[in-house]
Amino acid sequence: MSDDFRGMHWMLVTPFDDRETVDTNCIQKVVKKAADSGCVGVVVLGEMGEWRRLLDTERNTVLQQVMKVSGELKVTVGTTAPSTFVAVERAKEAEKAGAHAVMVSPPPLAKPNPVAVTDFYKRIASSINIPLVVQDFPQASGVHMSPQFILDLADAIPSFRYLKLEDPPTPTKITRIKDLTGDRLGIFGGLGGVVLLDELRRGAIGAMTGFAYPEVLVEVINLFFAGQVHNATVMFNKFLPLILFENQEGINLSIRKEAVKLRGLIDTARVRHPAGPIDDNTRGELLQLIKDLGLE
Amino acid sequence: MSDDFRGMHWMLVTPFDDRETVDTNCIQKVVKKAADSGCVGVVVLGEMGEWRRLLDTERNTVLQQVMKVSGELKVTVGTTAPSTFVAVERAKEAEKAGAHAVMVSPPPLAKPNPVAVTDFYKRIASSINIPLVVQDFPQASGVHMSPQFILDLADAIPSFRYLKLEDPPTPTKITRIKDLTGDRLGIFGGLGGVVLLDELRRGAIGAMTGFAYPEVLVEVINLFFAGQVHNATVMFNKFLPLILFENQEGINLSIRKEAVKLRGLIDTARVRHPAGPIDDNTRGELLQLIKDLGLE
Amino acid sequence: MSDDFRGMHWMLVTPFDDRETVDTNCIQKVVKKAADSGCVGVVVLGEMGEWRRLLDTERNTVLQQVMKVSGELKVTVGTTAPSTFVAVERAKEAEKAGAHAVMVSPPPLAKPNPVAVTDFYKRIASSINIPLVVQDFPQASGVHMSPQFILDLADAIPSFRYLKLEDPPTPTKITRIKDLTGDRLGIFGGLGGVVLLDELRRGAIGAMTGFAYPEVLVEVINLFFAGQVHNATVMFNKFLPLILFENQEGINLSIRKEAVKLRGLIDTARVRHPAGPIDDNTRGELLQLIKDLGLE
Amino acid sequence: MSDDFRGMHWMLVTPFDDRETVDTNCIQKVVKKAADSGCVGVVVLGEMGEWRRLLDTERNTVLQQVMKVSGELKVTVGTTAPSTFVAVERAKEAEKAGAHAVMVSPPPLAKPNPVAVTDFYKRIASSINIPLVVQDFPQASGVHMSPQFILDLADAIPSFRYLKLEDPPTPTKITRIKDLTGDRLGIFGGLGGVVLLDELRRGAIGAMTGFAYPEVLVEVINLFFAGQVHNATVMFNKFLPLILFENQEGINLSIRKEAVKLRGLIDTARVRHPAGPIDDNTRGELLQLIKDLGLE
Repeated sequence: MSDDFRGMHWMLVTPFDDRETVDTNCIQKVVKKAADSGCVGVVVLGEMGEWRRLLDTERNTVLQQVMKVSGELKVTVGTTAPSTFVAVERAKEAEKAGAHAVMVSPPPLAKPNPVAVTDFYKRIASSINIPLVVQDFPQASGVHMSPQFILDLADAIPSFRYLKLEDPPTPTKITRIKDLTGDRLGIFGGLGGVVLLDELRRGAIGAMTGFAYPEVLVEVINLFFAGQVHNATVMFNKFLPLILFENQEGINLSIRKEAVKLRGLIDTARVRHPAGPIDDNTRGELLQLIKDLGLE
Repeated sequence: MSDDFRGMHWMLVTPFDDRETVDTNCIQKVVKKAADSGCVGVVVLGEMGEWRRLLDTERNTVLQQVMKVSGELKVTVGTTAPSTFVAVERAKEAEKAGAHAVMVSPPPLAKPNPVAVTDFYKRIASSINIPLVVQDFPQASGVHMSPQFILDLADAIPSFRYLKLEDPPTPTKITRIKDLTGDRLGIFGGLGGVVLLDELRRGAIGAMTGFAYPEVLVEVINLFFAGQVHNATVMFNKFLPLILFENQEGINLSIRKEAVKLRGLIDTARVRHPAGPIDDNTRGELLQLIKDLGLE
Repeated sequence: MSDDFRGMHWMLVTPFDDRETVDTNCIQKVVKKAADSGCVGVVVLGEMGEWRRLLDTERNTVLQQVMKVSGELKVTVGTTAPSTFVAVERAKEAEKAGAHAVMVSPPPLAKPNPVAVTDFYKRIASSINIPLVVQDFPQASGVHMSPQFILDLADAIPSFRYLKLEDPPTPTKITRIKDLTGDRLGIFGGLGGVVLLDELRRGAIGAMTGFAYPEVLVEVINLFFAGQVHNATVMFNKFLPLILFENQEGINLSIRKEAVKLRGLIDTARVRHPAGPIDDNTRGELLQLIKDLGLE
Repeated sequence: MSDDFRGMHWMLVTPFDDRETVDTNCIQKVVKKAADSGCVGVVVLGEMGEWRRLLDTERNTVLQQVMKVSGELKVTVGTTAPSTFVAVERAKEAEKAGAHAVMVSPPPLAKPNPVAVTDFYKRIASSINIPLVVQDFPQASGVHMSPQFILDLADAIPSFRYLKLEDPPTPTKITRIKDLTGDRLGIFGGLGGVVLLDELRRGAIGAMTGFAYPEVLVEVINLFFAGQVHNATVMFNKFLPLILFENQEGINLSIRKEAVKLRGLIDTARVRHPAGPIDDNTRGELLQLIKDLGLE
């Protein structure tokens, strides 16, 4: 496994204006923040980017805008789709736009079908020349992938080089996968960074997550890989209340957009309906937490 | 409720060639078969039309092609989407193309949220001038709608005039809805037509379904509304083994496409991966059933 | 595979009085009907017997009462449980009472875990000396078992001799399992008998189902195994509307109890709350169907 | 709402020996720890107590044993069951044994049915004279209850006095419920205590949870109600890494039993199969966390 993806990749929000139209102007600020925060990359059009709620033309708009300003950042594009055909088209589109990797969850299936999942990934991988990040997030995809299946998939698909692991308990699964695959796969934590430190201890090479203060996770990761585990722990625990607060089930994206807006990176915290905004109490708690932690 | 939608609406398949590309040539034959069979309308881009597995541009291609040849048929377009924004765009696109109605399932929701569902439908209805067909299919949408909710929705949205009811047991639900709404809503059966006769007895005004031999259901419906309930029953029961065979869970679309291909209406039975074809045994059983029933 | 289980096994209802107390008096009549109808066996304490809604002491009451009057019938006892410990206790209790087999679904699992399922069955099988019927009903158990897994399980557990297959499309799965296991497993159809004929054609050795008129399915099975496939088909198709009517999703048990009551076998059609009775319309339709088919 | 339940209620584990048999000897130590830790009560036979995995006779054994040594502790007994009949029997059994309250989740339902849920609770409440704790934990029960439904239920059932709220985001739901019901219901947080502080801020009167160090949560709650919110926060944040670690999805019960065993309160960390023990890495991380926090 090469190391150029090691580190923090920020899952980008898709900014909207008050009419829920994509706000391309803000994309630049968000990408710039990722670079300034020390992220090694960004992930665009993931769950955090509300990919399911976009028109195909909007996907392209977002992608083009990100590529314009991404500079040295590694750009990973979420290209999951309910059919292999569409997933392939999206992967090709991402590569053509200049992406460094595509991130793909298994397609929805009525019942377990490892052969179909393998074929799905094979067809995608064989249509592009950039690496594949497999997203293992059964709560969203409905598909469970065992460590053995992941090993078989890695054997079958050389360009499957990274795994975004969001199947809790993730530390346990990291160990089981690494016992089978060694260092062939670079494993990233997700899930809002809530268990990042345990994931690093088990062998993760970084995180792909949307926590609104990526510089915090960048520093935790840097300290950890510099061997300063104690300092990494102190830092992580300090921010844990906010990391946890942001990651509240069902409203995590709305909270994050609120925080990203508070940082001045986007003009509205709008998420596309039927998702909705957070209430005033939650906003107040967020502000208090940010203030208590001395964040901008 | 006006009566111009009363009758059989055929859910159209989306034809593909061997590379899973949309085969526009065959669409004409399929639509013509609906008209020749006595259908009052067609439904395009529904579950049967694999709408989830298409690119946006392909949606448009299919829709334009259907409109070219639809003649007197009522055309209902599936415009369900995971976000209200996209559902509105699709509804406007359908109206612009000349559709007579849009059919929309509730959007995916993490937990029950009747307010969000109501707002979803309101925003769609207020963006177009053609009637709304609400699809009540919780197995696919994950959203349950009670008879009371359906009444409230009809009160709030005058253009909500039709309900495609696929929440079993459907006969019981038809009665409960009609007890509340009287004749304001035209209710259609779906689910492959498996309980069509019971649905008609409870007050359904027809069916929106993809059974490969729509002329059979047309005749059942015609006999029923002509007061020849016994003859309708005899006819329905005769074809029930095939209706049931086609509707096998998990492979119903693949079987139907095979039957539609056998009829010479499409060139391949391809469904988009990760869905797949039926096996030889199932194909053999289908052929035998068709032969036993004296179908072409 | 020995043949002594070949044929129809009637899934018994658990009769209740108007206060939802187990009505032991009626159990005798129900079991006698199974014998008089030509069933080879009965299955007690399955989904149809509302096993999930009984106290442990009631399980025992029902079981003892059935054994008293079962005569030549093979008695299979549902002993599924949420823990291996309890499933083992129930299996031992069934064997001690004189049962001929136990029927067990996989335990509920948060995520797929074939090792745990295998251990579950091994521990049960090693605690008794009667055969094991594995129930493959993912809609109820939440656990999917592939044909390969079923083969491995059969290799590991010699007393796993029968499979109650309720994972649609069942005909396709029967073929896939038989391709792997040959004749080692006796496969039974379930699901209300809706696809019984196709299941027999694919190699099923009978059915374990609760259709209120078991004599109909007995005759279909007998005709089929006597080589009179056409006559079996004619008979099956004649009763298909009733078979299908009874099997309506969500209310099938309530309909069946109503029919069993109409036959004079139980005194009330009560199902335990929160399940409830069918409405008058459904009851009327049931009566009409029974009358049209010339049933008692 | 009277205040005698305000505070921390410890969800008790059910101790097993190496053969998974209930270990009654250890129950005494566990209950005594709750009292010594300053808990106001204990909850027995909840999810944490593996109620689903016990025989009815074992339920009774555990309950009797707890009552023997509970002293001043309020004892709440989980009496959820898949049928109303069994839930009523269990509630009566709990009252007879001397319990102070019963805790009940809605029964499993194939589709939303608020009338059935209301009747379920009414029948239970009318069969006993002790208060009802409604457990709102849709991830386990499959049933969602809206704030309006909870208000209606409180109006219909005077003895419904407490709510164990585990439907995230819980702080938001607490506020919505309190806006409707005022102080009529005493609301408890659960979910391992992960968001306890936010829950208290929104108006919770305590927690019912199984965190292995209940004295920590007792002190957080006491500080909070003494008006020392800052100190409560400092204390809570200090232990948050352990609270979060224990609550890992899918293995939280196994981790807790390990911690409770480390405290010398139970002899084995056994959970009933198909659940299993934690691995060595997880055990090591637990030990390190405990050591870092200066816990015994």
